[in-house]
Amino acid sequence: MLSNRGQKNLAGSNPLVAAHFNAEADPWHAQRNPEGYINMGTAENGLLYDLLKEKFNHTAPVSEKLTHYTDMRGDHNLRKAFAEFYSRGLNNRIEPSQVVFSTGSSAILDQLAHLLFEPGDGILIPAPYYAGFDHDFRARAGVTPVPAYLSGADGYRLSVEVLAESIYRASEDGIQVKGILITNPNNPLGDVYPPDLVREIIEFAKSRQLPVIWDEIYRHSIFDDSPFTPILNLADGYDEHVHVVYGFAKDFGLSGFKAGVLITRNSDLLKAMPQLTYFACLSSSTQHLLIEMLSDHDWLHKLQKENRIRIARAYQTFTSLLDELNIPYHPASAGFFLWLDLRSWLNSSNRAGEMKLYRKLFDTGKINLSPGAGFHSLESGWFRACYARDDAYLKEAASRIEEVLNTR
Amino acid sequence: MLSNRGQKNLAGSNPLVAAHFNAEADPWHAQRNPEGYINMGTAENGLLYDLLKEKFNHTAPVSEKLTHYTDMRGDHNLRKAFAEFYSRGLNNRIEPSQVVFSTGSSAILDQLAHLLFEPGDGILIPAPYYAGFDHDFRARAGVTPVPAYLSGADGYRLSVEVLAESIYRASEDGIQVKGILITNPNNPLGDVYPPDLVREIIEFAKSRQLPVIWDEIYRHSIFDDSPFTPILNLADGYDEHVHVVYGFAKDFGLSGFKAGVLITRNSDLLKAMPQLTYFACLSSSTQHLLIEMLSDHDWLHKLQKENRIRIARAYQTFTSLLDELNIPYHPASAGFFLWLDLRSWLNSSNRAGEMKLYRKLFDTGKINLSPGAGFHSLESGWFRACYARDDAYLKEAASRIEEVLNTR
Repeated sequence: MLSNRGQKNLAGSNPLVAAHFNAEADPWHAQRNPEGYINMGTAENGLLYDLLKEKFNHTAPVSEKLTHYTDMRGDHNLRKAFAEFYSRGLNNRIEPSQVVFSTGSSAILDQLAHLLFEPGDGILIPAPYYAGFDHDFRARAGVTPVPAYLSGADGYRLSVEVLAESIYRASEDGIQVKGILITNPNNPLGDVYPPDLVREIIEFAKSRQLPVIWDEIYRHSIFDDSPFTPILNLADGYDEHVHVVYGFAKDFGLSGFKAGVLITRNSDLLKAMPQLTYFACLSSSTQHLLIEMLSDHDWLHKLQKENRIRIARAYQTFTSLLDELNIPYHPASAGFFLWLDLRSWLNSSNRAGEMKLYRKLFDTGKINLSPGAGFHSLESGWFRACYARDDAYLKEAASRIEEVLNTR
Repeated sequence: MLSNRGQKNLAGSNPLVAAHFNAEADPWHAQRNPEGYINMGTAENGLLYDLLKEKFNHTAPVSEKLTHYTDMRGDHNLRKAFAEFYSRGLNNRIEPSQVVFSTGSSAILDQLAHLLFEPGDGILIPAPYYAGFDHDFRARAGVTPVPAYLSGADGYRLSVEVLAESIYRASEDGIQVKGILITNPNNPLGDVYPPDLVREIIEFAKSRQLPVIWDEIYRHSIFDDSPFTPILNLADGYDEHVHVVYGFAKDFGLSGFKAGVLITRNSDLLKAMPQLTYFACLSSSTQHLLIEMLSDHDWLHKLQKENRIRIARAYQTFTSLLDELNIPYHPASAGFFLWLDLRSWLNSSNRAGEMKLYRKLFDTGKINLSPGAGFHSLESGWFRACYARDDAYLKEAASRIEEVLNTR
């Protein structure tokens, strides 16, 4: 019935996606549904709706122009507003012509995979990494993610040595690495990479002539004083090969809007992208809302400021609860997830043990944490917990985690 | 720089797409811009905004739930409302689980091409056909459109004999036809196919075990008393192989919303589609507007009724103007385009002559009509003119066409 390539898509969704939707179908509520699921499995920002609503309530309805076809890369007004927004902190302004909108950062990655790589090529990604990248690169474009394994033993320190070694090992396995993907700030670790490391990675990529896909989707969700280094400030002389991915899912709490962005100075890529983006255009009614948001500088400033304050507070609340329970974690500076070290609570120190604990948390505790296996974690027993929720939610989460961990 | 497959996307857009955007950048207005372009090059419905605005003005803002991830196929409430809407007139109701939303009908076709066919497979399409199909099938999925040429000499009569012969001829050229695509009501002809023909095509596809992609995007834009036959009423016993494509661009005048729909009863396809739709999800803020529209039955009824009345009126106005000028055309029952026979005005009866007239119309007359070459018309000298505009626009159009045709 389906083509050969079609049949590869029959396996169904990632089990973690299914877990997300199962949990969301029966969500916890202190009064209305105290037995419902606590869902810490998806990196969604649940702290911003009051501010978004303020904006939604005062947005003019869709104009006639926007009911008709607009530029496939996004309306010029949107790309202009975005270029201005994203140029802040850059030493070299972005032009609207260097911006391409599509339906989410996954759509952008899928299109980049098609345009930059051949089927079977490898893309190097420091691991643990966001579980969705496997689907983004493999499902349609047929590009193979190659994990560069970092270790909990040294705090998951990323270095160009690890990258070099992983490329060598992949080639021994018959996979040619043809590009590098880095997420900064990082998911799931919450690390923000210092300028020196960013510079070293660029130099490393340059020396091997590898294109760099640089995912900055958590750029405005740094909640401590870690200084953020936009990659485009350090890519001088190599910026044709550096492709920045951004989106409104995280910093703006708008995952449902499926608004992703590519920023690149590569003229070939800018020419080719619209041919694929055509199949994944952002609806103009959504573009309209984004233009309104990006053009209201006071509101935007408030959103960003409040976002940092609220994540910091949720981080503080959740880590205090974990500290009380003596549950270790990798300390974070950005994002809204914690990388929990539950190794001491495994029955067996392997994937089976990790999966068993995951199921126990989900089925018995009705709490959805994501097991490290999904992130290609080298060691078993780490879990990602997304905490961008209110205090009551986090307290309920901690109490359920405690209960499950205490009943061996 | 780009991959081999990436480089295939460097050629840039279809010149007709460029013409559309050039014309739209400097649009005619009786008072404000009398020297601007008259754009009849794109099948957009410009007659419905007052009704849409009424709805936009009374729609609640996006709810918190919709700011977060929803089902990749479209929110259940949207698929439910759509299934109800599309089931009217069917003898076998559609279920929400048989509906998949994505970013436009082109996105749906691109995904179907990937899932149903291998690269290089042929898809048979009666010609003249909508210019965009070439991009939809070729650009990313690598499937080859095979025109089944109809002739103006017999009024572009579609038959299974023409289909059979075209499949045979393609196989002699080394292309294996693995599926059929039919648009009913048809674009660019505006024909509505009678039940007997629909039945014969299904029988023909069944006898050769070819899947059928059936494009009903102009379903609610039939403006005379031609009875419409939904394909799903006649696909009994073969409905697993019939995949209906719909969208909100035409009947709802919402091309900018990029809302396309697949309706299928094929369980494998329903399982595989979300894996690709993931990269082309419709924004939930747009889904929200569509749910409101589909759930307000009074408004919906009014929109559909007014749409038919207004297209009929525009058709009447435009054909009267053409009749006065003695310009022949293929009579239409649906859509909002006319297939004009300008063969008498060509300097040479070939593609070069057609292109010369096209350029003269565009550059001298500042009127954008689409030359038949873009639609794989067998004979040179036919042009498509989209007329869903007000009377003043149509009068200006006719006067410009007259002027260009009269100055040899």
